[in-house]
Amino acid sequence: MSVDKQDPWLLTPGPLTTSMETKQAMLHDWGSRDASFIEMNARVRNELIKIVDADGTHVCVPIQGSGTFAVEATLGTLIPRDGKALILINGAYGKRMAKILDYAGRSYMTQETAEDVPVDAGTLDALLSQDTTITHVLVVHCETTSGILNPIADVANVVKSHHRSLIIDSMSAFGAIPISAKEIAFDAILASSNKCLEGIPGMGFAIIRQSVLEGCEGNAHALSLDMYDQWKSMEATKQWRFTPPTHVIAAFDCAISQYLAAGGVAGRNQRYSDNCKILVEGMRELGFETLLPSELQAPIIVTFKMPADPAFVFDDFYDRLKDEGYVIYPGKLTVAPSFRIGCIGNLSKTEMDSAMATIRRVLNDMGVNNGTPTAA
Amino acid sequence: MSVDKQDPWLLTPGPLTTSMETKQAMLHDWGSRDASFIEMNARVRNELIKIVDADGTHVCVPIQGSGTFAVEATLGTLIPRDGKALILINGAYGKRMAKILDYAGRSYMTQETAEDVPVDAGTLDALLSQDTTITHVLVVHCETTSGILNPIADVANVVKSHHRSLIIDSMSAFGAIPISAKEIAFDAILASSNKCLEGIPGMGFAIIRQSVLEGCEGNAHALSLDMYDQWKSMEATKQWRFTPPTHVIAAFDCAISQYLAAGGVAGRNQRYSDNCKILVEGMRELGFETLLPSELQAPIIVTFKMPADPAFVFDDFYDRLKDEGYVIYPGKLTVAPSFRIGCIGNLSKTEMDSAMATIRRVLNDMGVNNGTPTAA
Repeated sequence: MSVDKQDPWLLTPGPLTTSMETKQAMLHDWGSRDASFIEMNARVRNELIKIVDADGTHVCVPIQGSGTFAVEATLGTLIPRDGKALILINGAYGKRMAKILDYAGRSYMTQETAEDVPVDAGTLDALLSQDTTITHVLVVHCETTSGILNPIADVANVVKSHHRSLIIDSMSAFGAIPISAKEIAFDAILASSNKCLEGIPGMGFAIIRQSVLEGCEGNAHALSLDMYDQWKSMEATKQWRFTPPTHVIAAFDCAISQYLAAGGVAGRNQRYSDNCKILVEGMRELGFETLLPSELQAPIIVTFKMPADPAFVFDDFYDRLKDEGYVIYPGKLTVAPSFRIGCIGNLSKTEMDSAMATIRRVLNDMGVNNGTPTAA
Repeated sequence: MSVDKQDPWLLTPGPLTTSMETKQAMLHDWGSRDASFIEMNARVRNELIKIVDADGTHVCVPIQGSGTFAVEATLGTLIPRDGKALILINGAYGKRMAKILDYAGRSYMTQETAEDVPVDAGTLDALLSQDTTITHVLVVHCETTSGILNPIADVANVVKSHHRSLIIDSMSAFGAIPISAKEIAFDAILASSNKCLEGIPGMGFAIIRQSVLEGCEGNAHALSLDMYDQWKSMEATKQWRFTPPTHVIAAFDCAISQYLAAGGVAGRNQRYSDNCKILVEGMRELGFETLLPSELQAPIIVTFKMPADPAFVFDDFYDRLKDEGYVIYPGKLTVAPSFRIGCIGNLSKTEMDSAMATIRRVLNDMGVNNGTPTAA
């Protein structure tokens, strides 16, 4: 082991490595009616709105649970029982939205592209022209399945021109990929505490257009997941409807303050882009190939094709890196063998350089000459 | 201020005061596939089952979110679409179960008693005889609204004799009020991480009879709240379906280990009973009256009737105690003005004695001569 008993660095899509300051913010207990807790909660909600320039038009509704809880709560609350969704799918998280609507009993259709192909605004335009019963369009900002960045601005323009409602699952992009409600028309964008904002896992949130949310009473398919009720209750009392994850919120508040001090979206985007560059260039030097060309690659998580060299056994590679203090991630592609390495969390040049040095050493130890994949 | 900058002691129904050891368990980051995390998660699940003697018959299914999420997930998963529930209600948490079933679209009837009257097994017996379409009986173990302990053994015997299914919401009692699956027949009992087991808030769990859960595929009304899917997936992969609240689980694991070291249910029950005795005797000496007679009072949270003395203004009393480092709780009774003081969390004789001394001083400062309520 080249590392002492430090936690391994998490080069994954989450849970992520967080700063010690963020974790230390949890060394207290708060009552849910406590003035300092209520202040933290209000600050978190306000800052989240400002990150996407949505102050004045949108409200922030936090929700207990993982990111999927926030997705399900937002879809169930915003799409009425007689609505119809069009889901643009190019990975597992798009598919999960379809599964959610199956549970919620909402009508939907899907438009699927391959995992390495962005969702297509032209096709969307045609579909919305053909089917005027579609009320909502759902899209994933950065599909963590592959790491692809979808063309949100193009999608939003098409949806707006057809006067439909756009819901963006920005789970792994929020706070690191710039998006402004002043330029991109969305009715809701959602994410969780423990992706690019580097809090700990345990809550999600949606930034929802207030004029839309006001009409959503009675839509939700579950009490716990009713974002209308959550919002109305929080506005009235400043408190959460049900026991809040107090420590998670305290950590999130602390993480957001570090985020703002480090330059907000621009700062976070720069650091992650630098991380991504070190990773992609380093791996390419070793012969590895990324699934995606650079122009489609979000600086969040990178999918590498599995090398052809028979000396490369992924589980062995994974375990050796883990033993050296770096946790990577298996692939999730349905089309081809692959693995993933993340660029997000409390990591910068030092850790990424060190990760690459470790990868080089481990490959050498494994007798892997280069990472060139089998020709397609 | 008689306290330094220590966090106030939370004499509330939760979030609660937790030990520093529990909070310090959160000073790490874990990947969700990390062997040490998977081990912690398995240990938590196993220990929770053992607390209610349910090993061999039941499984533990954890779920992200607050306690209400666990209630809703369990009801939605166990009660089929064509089932019918009978909810025994004597407070806000019984009523909340009815609200959940409204969202989930399940048929139900209610049997309501006053907030200071236990649910009645005799009436239950008659109702189950009359209505053979009732499939499930739902009951709250300790109703935090008043602090009343419901007669779970009597209820369970009646439900068993009618061959119906019993679901117990034991949110504020689990781990402190003894209950054994070997003696009390339940299909599910549920609670959360941050009540009597003294973890931090952010997850709930249900202990569910395996033979029952196996038949529950397709019942749930929300993907995030599908306890069947959560269980099957966790059994298959040892991982959570969706991002786990890693830090909450680590704190819970640590809290459970302290719980076991302190004597498990017997130890926790003794400490809380001692806390409750100090509180009730101390308050009675000052003229205050509890809502409940001692035989109905769970050692969890105590409801006091509002004093008649016009010098007693609750908000003032609350704020003064808060300033002195003790957070109490407003009443939730619908029938009469009241307030509540909790006995649970990481508190023992020292803190309770000190809380009582502070209450005496504060009442004196307020010019309250005694706490005798207005005659009913």
